[in-house]
Amino acid sequence: MTRRLHLNAFLMNTGHHEASWRLPESDPYAHVDLAHYVGLARIAERGTFDSLFLADGPQLWNDIAQRPSGALEPLTLLTALATATEHIGLIATASTSYNSPYNLARRFASLDIVSGGRAGWNIVTTAGAEAARNFGLDAEPAHAERYARAAEFLDVALKLWDSWEDDAIVGDKAAGVWGDDAKIHPPRHKGRYFSVAGALNVPRTPQGYPLLVQAGSSEDGKAFAARYAEAVFTAQQTLADAQAFYADLKSRTAAAGRDPEHIKVLPGIVPVIGSTEAEARANEQVLEDHIVPAHGLARLERLLQLKPGTLELDRQLPADLPSEDAVEGAKSRYTLIVQLARRERLTVRRLIGRLGGGRGHLTFAGTPEQVADAIGTWFTQGAADGFNIMPAVLPSGLETFVEQVVPILRARGLLRTEYGPRRTLRDRYGLPRPANQYALRENALV
Amino acid sequence: MTRRLHLNAFLMNTGHHEASWRLPESDPYAHVDLAHYVGLARIAERGTFDSLFLADGPQLWNDIAQRPSGALEPLTLLTALATATEHIGLIATASTSYNSPYNLARRFASLDIVSGGRAGWNIVTTAGAEAARNFGLDAEPAHAERYARAAEFLDVALKLWDSWEDDAIVGDKAAGVWGDDAKIHPPRHKGRYFSVAGALNVPRTPQGYPLLVQAGSSEDGKAFAARYAEAVFTAQQTLADAQAFYADLKSRTAAAGRDPEHIKVLPGIVPVIGSTEAEARANEQVLEDHIVPAHGLARLERLLQLKPGTLELDRQLPADLPSEDAVEGAKSRYTLIVQLARRERLTVRRLIGRLGGGRGHLTFAGTPEQVADAIGTWFTQGAADGFNIMPAVLPSGLETFVEQVVPILRARGLLRTEYGPRRTLRDRYGLPRPANQYALRENALV
Ligand SMILES: Cc1cc2nc3c(=O)[nH]c(=O)nc-3n(C[C@H](O)[C@H](O)[C@H](O)COP(=O)(O)O)c2cc1C
Ligand SMILES: Cc1cc2nc3c(=O)[nH]c(=O)nc-3n(C[C@H](O)[C@H](O)[C@H](O)COP(=O)(O)O)c2cc1C
Repeated sequence: MTRRLHLNAFLMNTGHHEASWRLPESDPYAHVDLAHYVGLARIAERGTFDSLFLADGPQLWNDIAQRPSGALEPLTLLTALATATEHIGLIATASTSYNSPYNLARRFASLDIVSGGRAGWNIVTTAGAEAARNFGLDAEPAHAERYARAAEFLDVALKLWDSWEDDAIVGDKAAGVWGDDAKIHPPRHKGRYFSVAGALNVPRTPQGYPLLVQAGSSEDGKAFAARYAEAVFTAQQTLADAQAFYADLKSRTAAAGRDPEHIKVLPGIVPVIGSTEAEARANEQVLEDHIVPAHGLARLERLLQLKPGTLELDRQLPADLPSEDAVEGAKSRYTLIVQLARRERLTVRRLIGRLGGGRGHLTFAGTPEQVADAIGTWFTQGAADGFNIMPAVLPSGLETFVEQVVPILRARGLLRTEYGPRRTLRDRYGLPRPANQYALRENALV
Repeated sequence: MTRRLHLNAFLMNTGHHEASWRLPESDPYAHVDLAHYVGLARIAERGTFDSLFLADGPQLWNDIAQRPSGALEPLTLLTALATATEHIGLIATASTSYNSPYNLARRFASLDIVSGGRAGWNIVTTAGAEAARNFGLDAEPAHAERYARAAEFLDVALKLWDSWEDDAIVGDKAAGVWGDDAKIHPPRHKGRYFSVAGALNVPRTPQGYPLLVQAGSSEDGKAFAARYAEAVFTAQQTLADAQAFYADLKSRTAAAGRDPEHIKVLPGIVPVIGSTEAEARANEQVLEDHIVPAHGLARLERLLQLKPGTLELDRQLPADLPSEDAVEGAKSRYTLIVQLARRERLTVRRLIGRLGGGRGHLTFAGTPEQVADAIGTWFTQGAADGFNIMPAVLPSGLETFVEQVVPILRARGLLRTEYGPRRTLRDRYGLPRPANQYALRENALV
């Protein structure tokens, strides 16, 4: 079988560019409009995308003056989208720091059933004190602590999803026997962060459990991904960096005793498309011109975890920024942004422009052919198994991508031309349905 | 305006009777079949019901051999039903003991938006150690403790739902101003059970917040209902008991400074319908005959919180059962069952038969006219504002009710004949949209 490119549509209200909502075409209320998202999901299905994806954090950012804030809770929105679509995978972000395994495992299992096996979970540990303070804490737990909790969370969730064997339901009406108790395996888990005694109250689902996705690129993040993740979102600015990340993650996965084919690496790309290169750049400029500089400054300071007022628009980043080790939030993103600014000697103003669309993801302005070329190069040169497509403006950016780039990718044999028989999200990504950990054991513990 | 009866459809896989799944018509997998629930919701909409309702507890009961166990998580299922229906209200049970206010408030707000203002929350404190042990506890928190936490949970949730004023979104593209910070009100709550600093990341919803429903009838439960609930589910076995409960709850609500019209009392009824009285009783007998006595015994012992082996099938309940005060679980249900058994001098076997369909709710076998008469009597005699309809078998029991009882209720002017212009769940129950607590204050704290 030819190796095929995987495409994920990263949906975000009016688009990934922070000024996208100000364009004439954009609806300032799109962020809570189900119809807007149904439209996007259908465009992505026309493009035979593997999946769509919603980011999340359990807090309201402190910038509602500046851009659309708040959202429909992702699993709720994806459930509604499940009923409006047929093929596309549905990946929701949820935090291991601010959920309990029993509740979250139920919800993903329920989405997997309702969607016919199309659920995915972007597992995040949630950086920042804002979220922590909504859940009884004064400050964010340390980075290592968050990842330790995430690992235990996953272990518990996997036990819960396997707590019903696939054939636990008997349904013998005559005998009055509905289920087989011997095929129910309560986790009886007692750990450092969680204790969870009972079996899940949802049977095993079409996929067994949701596709496990991860998006942290720190050391801890990569170790976690190697152990659990089946797909990885990542922000990479250069082909060389992306290749290094790709090779590193595949070898870590092999070292963890897993098949490196069973982890799909999906760098993010913000395509800004024009019929000529000049038109693409002009489209990019329109967006940059809509950024309110003071807003961009505040956002950048937050991303870099600097005190407000630290940065100046027409100067470069200060030389004495702390190293990644000192950062307790999103470590890898921090390094990426600092390196981008230093490498290209960007002023803060220019850096803001560059980040406006992708917050550290690769913004690529060009013709459809150029975008397809870039995608093809990364895909064939060991930098990506596919891409996280992050349109700067929605719905138009996704529509343009599907109408103009997708046909080129298909013509080049890189992308499927149709979904074929209805299948699960794991089928789309070429991953096997996981076996049940209890059913595997010869003498299963009951 | 004439006073109209409110109807809520309490949906439960193949029906409320514990043996319903064994009937030839029943699907043993109905509990996780979205299509089954879509069908039920549409039947209820044909009957112009106000709402439908899903019970919930975050645990798997220890009886999967005996009857369908597990379910789709209610808010997930209701979200899917929101997209398949147009008018009917969608009420999900969720526990204040095993959720965090920020997460749960978001989810209900999101359902309210996605459904166009049709969300309701049945607020429960969740009895039983099984649930507790899935959330890091060894035993269930004391009854009073659970209700104290519930009250603080509600206070926080109400602050979160009001944390955006209705007009917080400005959407001024030209000025680059999306929202008005002065209309965002972070709770900054620090209490005994919760501390929640930030505003919700969902704007205020069509209803402001979900319809608040409550279903506990203990002293603590009624006090809680009087303070917060807009609708109350209750199990009542006799007209006199139901009248007393109704009067008590209305006067408590008035005493709490609220309009007693703003709390709707909905006793549960399990209608078993036949074209003659004899046929109805025969239908009831078929169900009773399908109960496996040992299973019913185990269920009853659990309901009464007795050790397995305490009860004997052909004897009455022991005389020395503990009083309600000693019960830490579902207090009011305990008393109701014990009183029913004593009043009618039922053997355990007969008591199991009586409870098979309603677990303490009134099972009423009769012709459509008799069922309509009973409903009419309770409604006009100060015992009910409407009913929680709990069909013994689903979908057939709901279908029969809608086809045979609903037309009689309509002919008598008790029930709406159509939904009229699309409205919110609160509109259906004749309740006002709540004002925002912050917008009300003349000098709102920001
Ligand atoms: C495409 C992409 C999407 C992400 N989405 C989220 C998100 O929705 N919520 C979140 O808290 N973090 C999100 N992240 C951030 C990562 O999950 C992670 O928290 C961050 O990279 C910091 O982790 P690290 O310190 O391991 O790098 C995303 C990252 C990427 C690359
Ligand atoms: C119609 C009805 C539905 C109920 N549904 C639930 C439910 O889904 N989950 C739950 O934990 N309790 C449920 N209950 C139980 C009550 O919420 C409450 O926990 C129980 O009556 C014990 O509370 P009390 O001690 O205040 O009476 C329900 C009660 C009634 C009457």
